[in-house]
Amino acid sequence: MLLEHIRGPEDLKALPVDQLDELAAEVRQFLIEKLSVTGGHLASNLGVVELTLALHYVFDSPKDKLIFDVGHQAYVHKMITGRMHRFDTLRQYKGLCGFVKRAESEHDVWEAGHSSTSLSGAMGMALARDLKGESHQVVAIIGDGALTGGMALEALNHIGHEKKDLIVILNDNEMSIAPNVGALHNYLGRIRSDRHYLKAKEELQQLLNRIPAIGGKLAKTAERLKDSLKYMVVPGMWFEELGYTYLGPVDGHDIRKLLEALQQAKSVGGPVLVHVLTVKGKGYEPAEADSHKWHGITPYKIESGQVLKAVGPPTYTDVFGEALVELAERDPRIVAVTPAMPGGSGLLKFAERFPDRMFDVGIAEQHAATMCAALALEGMKPVFAVYSTFLQRAYDQVVHDICRHNANVIFAIDRAGLVGPDGETHQGVFDVAFLRHIPNMMLMMPKDENELRRMLRTAVDYDGGPIAVRYPRAAGVGVSLDSDPQPLPIGEWETVREGDGAVVLACGPMVGLAMEAAEQLKRDGMQLRVVNARFLKPLDETMLLALAGDGLPVIVLEEGAVHGGLGGAVLEFYALRGIDHMRVRLIGVPDRFIEHGSIKEQRAEIGLTVERIVTEAKQLRARPGRRASVIRS
Amino acid sequence: MLLEHIRGPEDLKALPVDQLDELAAEVRQFLIEKLSVTGGHLASNLGVVELTLALHYVFDSPKDKLIFDVGHQAYVHKMITGRMHRFDTLRQYKGLCGFVKRAESEHDVWEAGHSSTSLSGAMGMALARDLKGESHQVVAIIGDGALTGGMALEALNHIGHEKKDLIVILNDNEMSIAPNVGALHNYLGRIRSDRHYLKAKEELQQLLNRIPAIGGKLAKTAERLKDSLKYMVVPGMWFEELGYTYLGPVDGHDIRKLLEALQQAKSVGGPVLVHVLTVKGKGYEPAEADSHKWHGITPYKIESGQVLKAVGPPTYTDVFGEALVELAERDPRIVAVTPAMPGGSGLLKFAERFPDRMFDVGIAEQHAATMCAALALEGMKPVFAVYSTFLQRAYDQVVHDICRHNANVIFAIDRAGLVGPDGETHQGVFDVAFLRHIPNMMLMMPKDENELRRMLRTAVDYDGGPIAVRYPRAAGVGVSLDSDPQPLPIGEWETVREGDGAVVLACGPMVGLAMEAAEQLKRDGMQLRVVNARFLKPLDETMLLALAGDGLPVIVLEEGAVHGGLGGAVLEFYALRGIDHMRVRLIGVPDRFIEHGSIKEQRAEIGLTVERIVTEAKQLRARPGRRASVIRS
Repeated sequence: MLLEHIRGPEDLKALPVDQLDELAAEVRQFLIEKLSVTGGHLASNLGVVELTLALHYVFDSPKDKLIFDVGHQAYVHKMITGRMHRFDTLRQYKGLCGFVKRAESEHDVWEAGHSSTSLSGAMGMALARDLKGESHQVVAIIGDGALTGGMALEALNHIGHEKKDLIVILNDNEMSIAPNVGALHNYLGRIRSDRHYLKAKEELQQLLNRIPAIGGKLAKTAERLKDSLKYMVVPGMWFEELGYTYLGPVDGHDIRKLLEALQQAKSVGGPVLVHVLTVKGKGYEPAEADSHKWHGITPYKIESGQVLKAVGPPTYTDVFGEALVELAERDPRIVAVTPAMPGGSGLLKFAERFPDRMFDVGIAEQHAATMCAALALEGMKPVFAVYSTFLQRAYDQVVHDICRHNANVIFAIDRAGLVGPDGETHQGVFDVAFLRHIPNMMLMMPKDENELRRMLRTAVDYDGGPIAVRYPRAAGVGVSLDSDPQPLPIGEWETVREGDGAVVLACGPMVGLAMEAAEQLKRDGMQLRVVNARFLKPLDETMLLALAGDGLPVIVLEEGAVHGGLGGAVLEFYALRGIDHMRVRLIGVPDRFIEHGSIKEQRAEIGLTVERIVTEAKQLRARPGRRASVIRS
Repeated sequence: MLLEHIRGPEDLKALPVDQLDELAAEVRQFLIEKLSVTGGHLASNLGVVELTLALHYVFDSPKDKLIFDVGHQAYVHKMITGRMHRFDTLRQYKGLCGFVKRAESEHDVWEAGHSSTSLSGAMGMALARDLKGESHQVVAIIGDGALTGGMALEALNHIGHEKKDLIVILNDNEMSIAPNVGALHNYLGRIRSDRHYLKAKEELQQLLNRIPAIGGKLAKTAERLKDSLKYMVVPGMWFEELGYTYLGPVDGHDIRKLLEALQQAKSVGGPVLVHVLTVKGKGYEPAEADSHKWHGITPYKIESGQVLKAVGPPTYTDVFGEALVELAERDPRIVAVTPAMPGGSGLLKFAERFPDRMFDVGIAEQHAATMCAALALEGMKPVFAVYSTFLQRAYDQVVHDICRHNANVIFAIDRAGLVGPDGETHQGVFDVAFLRHIPNMMLMMPKDENELRRMLRTAVDYDGGPIAVRYPRAAGVGVSLDSDPQPLPIGEWETVREGDGAVVLACGPMVGLAMEAAEQLKRDGMQLRVVNARFLKPLDETMLLALAGDGLPVIVLEEGAVHGGLGGAVLEFYALRGIDHMRVRLIGVPDRFIEHGSIKEQRAEIGLTVERIVTEAKQLRARPGRRASVIRS
């Protein structure tokens, strides 16, 4: 075993080149075994084994900066930099982070979970290096999928202009999480299919020699003709036009070729783009055969590739996907838009049933959102299916293009709330805070999967502007599904449990938590009222005023930022109405980023627990509320 | 006069082609005269006179969709579509909007104020057209500056892939608001300087004919050689590689050539890009000579081009620019980053003094923000100078790259609050709501220009993470400036007026409004306390607890969204501390978009007025507050 002797990049560098293939094989075996137990991002990491070894062989991390885009393909990097022994804890609470993490290692210089940030990160580091008069390499490793993200294209444009020494490794595996889309992808495909470009160089020279010597008017044209030949011998002219020296394409599983290309990149100066062709899932047959499924994977059996899945109710994602197909059967205005997440967002069935009404725009949340605005202005019912955390990318487009136009866009916001092992870069805890203050926006969250179906129906029926439904990364609660789900009255909450002790306002999975707390409190003789505050905007003003009349204390419970969320909305409502006597308590996600672990562990850490609700309720009972003498309404 | 007979596009179409130049001249004269009185976006509109006439001549608006990027260059379009008589009210309260406005005309199909949205808008409309089985043209008109925006590049990529019929007019005036940057700009420059490309076609054919007939191994290479010639005869190969038919470059002031190119674009099918070269400010010498200054202009004298400016204290923008230069003299870590707004953000002096520490990245807020994160991680002190409304574009980058890294990035947020004539697309009223809930973020706002200097000093001295200072689009209040401004204690508010009647918490220009209200109330025997809540995050918890002890009613006054703003923060603070007895009133921007007008008119419309404060304070006095018996802290 070579692997067990690798405690840092220096041990890797000490190996002769001809042992690197053996090491690569050991790395693969290690990943396949470890991830079969923990789960994790297998396919993308199997694809970059040789590339990562070559990077650490040629460059001197941490002096040279290795910047991994969407740090989920940095497992090999973690192994090489002294973290092999921690892989049993991968993505677990207090365990090894599934992404690059500065706190873990000096070799981790740039954290990311969202894609397309690496080029901007590299540019900032290159500028800082030059301003400080230092000299080291800055290397960004970015996938072809991530390159379709607008911010990566902005950076590509700026880097090509500034002419700083900076190396971009384009890890081209012909797909991001989903099959790649976009014209740039097509362009890369033409390069890939044309590998004889480089071989043609000599033949070309011969050909040119046959052109007779010419003078006069034609001389200049001949000169230009020769210039234009670079388009033929340099396949990456698109990048060359942007100011990059293009190297490649290089076989990303041929270590010698990789070392050669990286050495060349080091010596060139200015912006260099190395085009590396890799195969996602390389070396593990099930993953190579279906790399989408194996992008992020739960534990599996190594021999068969059989994935171990929990049995139970369908996920909210699945229920959404089914419901959307049903709605679309009846309403031809419905189209679905996804930023490179057809599978993760539950849209595969929709895509199969309505291929012409399904638009995967690539990793391009901004474009997706604004395109939805235009579709809606022209009478369609676009459903923008997006994870809560990725919708952050389209905040301005939601404000400026969707809400300002008051366009009938439906948002299907998946992974809302805590998300578990993906951790702090992926938490869906800000969307209520960043959507609630936008004029014209409506926002719902279902307490169970049948209510999700009703909310989708509500959204489709609603023609008054943008409307969003957010739902968690979770299985449903197992309720039966209405075959013809009826729309909900806009802005109407639901009292799911009567009680006169205190009132919990909650939505989504928090309703269940509140019900558990109510059962406990019942044993102590307190009747907790539980309200399903399923509309986060608009609020149920009638119910809020009635609560003010009752004078009961209110606990707002939310799996989202406690600042700017539903709790703030309720407080603002009462303040704007001049209602002063309400006693309101807030339980939500505190003002810090929440690291990886299970959702249960994350909730326990921040006090989104039955115990906390019980304690708050008891404290409120100990200090009785006051009945309002006058309610202004 | 031809112009007075143009009541709609049909009147334009009735003119013979050879009268269009005359009409163009009349349009220019009209704009130069009208805008000399009202101000407005002169230079960009003078640049597109012929282009807009040609568009309406060739296409059939509103059946064909004309989508103007950043709709401030749609004045000619407004003139042609029946709104000439309203130009006296341009950008004024209840007057003609300075941007495209759907409510104004059926010819206005796509609203924008932020750049780079037109391609996504066009794509959505093209998809809707095809889904509905309609047939009409969709035309996006986008500047070369706007094309550097990430979302435009995302759309460019998607459009090239989908192959729908869609026409992109690239209005290349070699600059956006500031001199353009970016590799794509350089590429366009090479096309511009190489106009003989097209003329070379025939010569090339001759040259090719001289290559002797060849067979065997070289035949294929020869074929490829001929293929590669398209790079020579087609200057826009960069766009062709992305799937567009490239037409141009076309002289944007030659109406016949424009008509010809647009007709050709109509007939091609699939995505077409027409590259039009225009001159900003065309036809008015002062604007041609300094098109940056004349981008958005206040009233001016036509003969001399002399701009009529108000005299008075320097603007916050100017004070920021001066202060940053002073700070940067002493601290070499300071660098400035702007997304194409060096002038508007007051950075021209900085750029002159520290050219190596100034980075204009083009219209690329996302890249700018993330690059700042990397600069900060490497020990620099990046100052991201950005308008409040444009910072919306970088929300995810602020969360994911700056705040999650807890990077020492300084935000200089200009145009915070109501902005006046630019209207609803530009209001800086959401930043408190979208920044306040992000962990690690700090946020300040100064009551006057000297405090702005102190806040910048505070930000530079602070090494604990991201810190922002926001300031209004306004002249300072005229206070004297400390030569060596001292930092403020983090999170400490300032009582600027003592009083025992009620307390107003306010920041920025609202402090002055509260002081005026205090003077009025004094006459009625009420002493209003006024607190300069200069830290929006963190709050001054000591003072808030002291206020709770006093039991005085509190009015939170803010020129920002009343939902999710400072008022919400104060309410959340008390609720989280279990403090129930506070009487808090909120005055802020209501939950709707605020249209153009003067800032004073906008404030009056929404009740950000002295009268409103006085009324609220009197109502609070009429219902006395309660002193808390127990304060939990």
